[in-house]
Amino acid sequence: GAKKIMAAPPLILCGGFLLLIILGTFLLKLPIATVHPISWVHSLFTATSAVTVTGLSVEDTGTVFTTFGQVTIALLIQCGGLGLMTFAIVTLVALGGRIGFLQRTVAIEAFNHTDASTIVSTAKSVLLFSFVVEFIGMVILAVHWSDSLGWKNSLFYGFFYTISAFNNAGFALSANSLIPYVSDPVVNFTISGLFIIGGLGFSVWIDLMRNRRWSKLSTYSKMMITGTIIINGVAVLAIYFIEYNNPHTLGPLSESGKWLASWFQAVTPRTAGFNTLPINQLRDATTALMLVLMFIGGGSLSTASGIKVVTFMLLVYATYGYLRRDEEVNVFKREIPKEVISKALALAMISIGVTWLAIFGLLLSEKSAPMIDVVFEAVSALGTVGLSRGLTGSLSDTGEFIIIFLMFIGRLGPLTLAYFLASPRRKKVRYPKAKMTVG
Amino acid sequence: GAKKIMAAPPLILCGGFLLLIILGTFLLKLPIATVHPISWVHSLFTATSAVTVTGLSVEDTGTVFTTFGQVTIALLIQCGGLGLMTFAIVTLVALGGRIGFLQRTVAIEAFNHTDASTIVSTAKSVLLFSFVVEFIGMVILAVHWSDSLGWKNSLFYGFFYTISAFNNAGFALSANSLIPYVSDPVVNFTISGLFIIGGLGFSVWIDLMRNRRWSKLSTYSKMMITGTIIINGVAVLAIYFIEYNNPHTLGPLSESGKWLASWFQAVTPRTAGFNTLPINQLRDATTALMLVLMFIGGGSLSTASGIKVVTFMLLVYATYGYLRRDEEVNVFKREIPKEVISKALALAMISIGVTWLAIFGLLLSEKSAPMIDVVFEAVSALGTVGLSRGLTGSLSDTGEFIIIFLMFIGRLGPLTLAYFLASPRRKKVRYPKAKMTVG
Ligand SMILES: [K+]
Ligand SMILES: [K+]
Repeated sequence: GAKKIMAAPPLILCGGFLLLIILGTFLLKLPIATVHPISWVHSLFTATSAVTVTGLSVEDTGTVFTTFGQVTIALLIQCGGLGLMTFAIVTLVALGGRIGFLQRTVAIEAFNHTDASTIVSTAKSVLLFSFVVEFIGMVILAVHWSDSLGWKNSLFYGFFYTISAFNNAGFALSANSLIPYVSDPVVNFTISGLFIIGGLGFSVWIDLMRNRRWSKLSTYSKMMITGTIIINGVAVLAIYFIEYNNPHTLGPLSESGKWLASWFQAVTPRTAGFNTLPINQLRDATTALMLVLMFIGGGSLSTASGIKVVTFMLLVYATYGYLRRDEEVNVFKREIPKEVISKALALAMISIGVTWLAIFGLLLSEKSAPMIDVVFEAVSALGTVGLSRGLTGSLSDTGEFIIIFLMFIGRLGPLTLAYFLASPRRKKVRYPKAKMTVG
Repeated sequence: GAKKIMAAPPLILCGGFLLLIILGTFLLKLPIATVHPISWVHSLFTATSAVTVTGLSVEDTGTVFTTFGQVTIALLIQCGGLGLMTFAIVTLVALGGRIGFLQRTVAIEAFNHTDASTIVSTAKSVLLFSFVVEFIGMVILAVHWSDSLGWKNSLFYGFFYTISAFNNAGFALSANSLIPYVSDPVVNFTISGLFIIGGLGFSVWIDLMRNRRWSKLSTYSKMMITGTIIINGVAVLAIYFIEYNNPHTLGPLSESGKWLASWFQAVTPRTAGFNTLPINQLRDATTALMLVLMFIGGGSLSTASGIKVVTFMLLVYATYGYLRRDEEVNVFKREIPKEVISKALALAMISIGVTWLAIFGLLLSEKSAPMIDVVFEAVSALGTVGLSRGLTGSLSDTGEFIIIFLMFIGRLGPLTLAYFLASPRRKKVRYPKAKMTVG
């Protein structure tokens, strides 16, 4: 009855992901999908990586998979990135007024400043906007590559890389990702443009299109835009200066090439996952920076994952507010509700906890792997980033299952999974307040 | 005037630490303190490590320092651990009713369930209790060692190790810490007993002595005791099973020796810092566990540091409470005030942020060091633990200053430092609430 419907959306989201992954696993296991047979585990891994738009791969996408296999991967990416999100929105609308507290929160968050009546039209706008952006990206890439690849191949490459970029999937048709294009500005800016647009989140784009002035934007949009600019700016400068003399990364490049590569490598960990520099050759300080960027991720309700830019900013603001003895957290002259801070805290804690448990498990299952490679792989999987220092191909079966699990809950959102695990309390009891020492 | 006095306690605490460190630096630089001259940086490092009860050492305490030097280190430890805490308490009492909001909070937290009038007598009890425990520890160790070392040496060893253990300092008189005593139950239980008593926090001991029944204990004491038992239990089991076959750690030991070593290595990272197993030979999974244990640390108002056991538990409870859609966080049938959760969040965020920045700096200054060694060293320093995978001795000067800074703010409490940096707001403005997407 009503209770079942109220619990539906997270279940539908979770079930939808599972169905897509199972479908993808069977399709990619078909003899016509690969040039030589692959194991069921590898098929499951690839399907999960595509549906969760992660981009980690145990089989080389460009050489092991046939055109049928590559198109399947591209469609799984599109369904997992853009499709499932739109599907979730429509489901919420279908439930109308009967949706419970949790679902109403999700729906309102999905389109803050938009009431339920406009959700269908908004969902349509999202799809239209996405297809237009993807079409433009595909044309630019296809034209750019047509000289070297011929029109047929360049069109397919344009199709595949556009879908992979816009959905922040990071799947590439060559084993070394975009390293061959490190100094190609058209490829760099088209692909980074696509994944930044996809990763900013649709609510921000809708807000920008409706209210063209900064002062009229929602607090969320202001935080998201400010946060993206600050994080990207700091990351570009840090990578440029740390890697400047590294002979394996920026060293051999021209001055403008260094800036281009720094830009690309700074924006891709949140959470596109392409790379134009060899990840395992980066200096350790850059690696430490990338771990944070991958953990933060992109925008809410976008094709990106991670704890999200605004979650990160809220935690910083809450900390700063506490230190200033402010009684409430204020951002851009708006008060942030206490339950929003609680949600940010819960999300960060669960993400840290899940990542740590996965690292612990991987260290037990991959005894010969360097610890930093394991940490990088786990953070990359939960953030559905897809960058790797090279561990993916040599994972044990247990290791592959841990990464599959991380990608799944990373894309579903660690909180969605946690909601299933924690049963809501039955009765409301109010207890006296405790005095408490902290720190 | 009144304003200056209101700002005093954190300043006095900070200034007291600095004075002790400067005094210690000069004393340890004296020709009679060492068998050969040491640099000013090493003298400063050793003094800071002693005053902050960390135990990281750039010069071997047992061979480089003379008896005068070793006694100086022991007294710095006692002043930095037990002394400065008592001093801070007395200062708070001296300010009486004129102390501001922040200071009152600190004072109440220092002795929850105790009003200001009983603070002096409580401070006396703390000192008396500590000296009695230290005396008992010293006698046990001296008697135990008297056969092998002779009464003079065994008395000195008993004196040094008791002070080092009770204050959770982790300084040892041999370069390989307590590895020679890995199978000696008397040494293991006496020293771990001392640092567990010291690290549990005095408010818990006072509470236990006054209210001997579980139901009468404060929520804080219940959380602290439960948390300590759970964390230690999990850690012992994990280390036992992970290291069981490791030929460099538990492998060669007897069954009871394995349990004894697991026990000791499980309880020492929070935040005693002694070791009976070689830290750099532990399996990576054990290392990952130790990082968490070192970050959590011991009890509030104790000789231990870290974010504290109860802070960690509050973050877990707050996360669980959010998932259950509880409107308030309840622990042991008591409601935890919102500002306490905010403080726990702020403390965790600042600790994570400072640790990350230090790791980033160390990765730039120690280019040839393995990343995991750097991470371990930084977490150990901020938690004033003192365990090391061997990096301490080969740190560059920049690296030594980063570690000195970490030990200092680790012991002072990252929040105390942050209070100085964040100026309280002047006027109170209440802004409208923002709608907000998280995650
Ligand atoms: K990705
Ligand atoms: K210590």
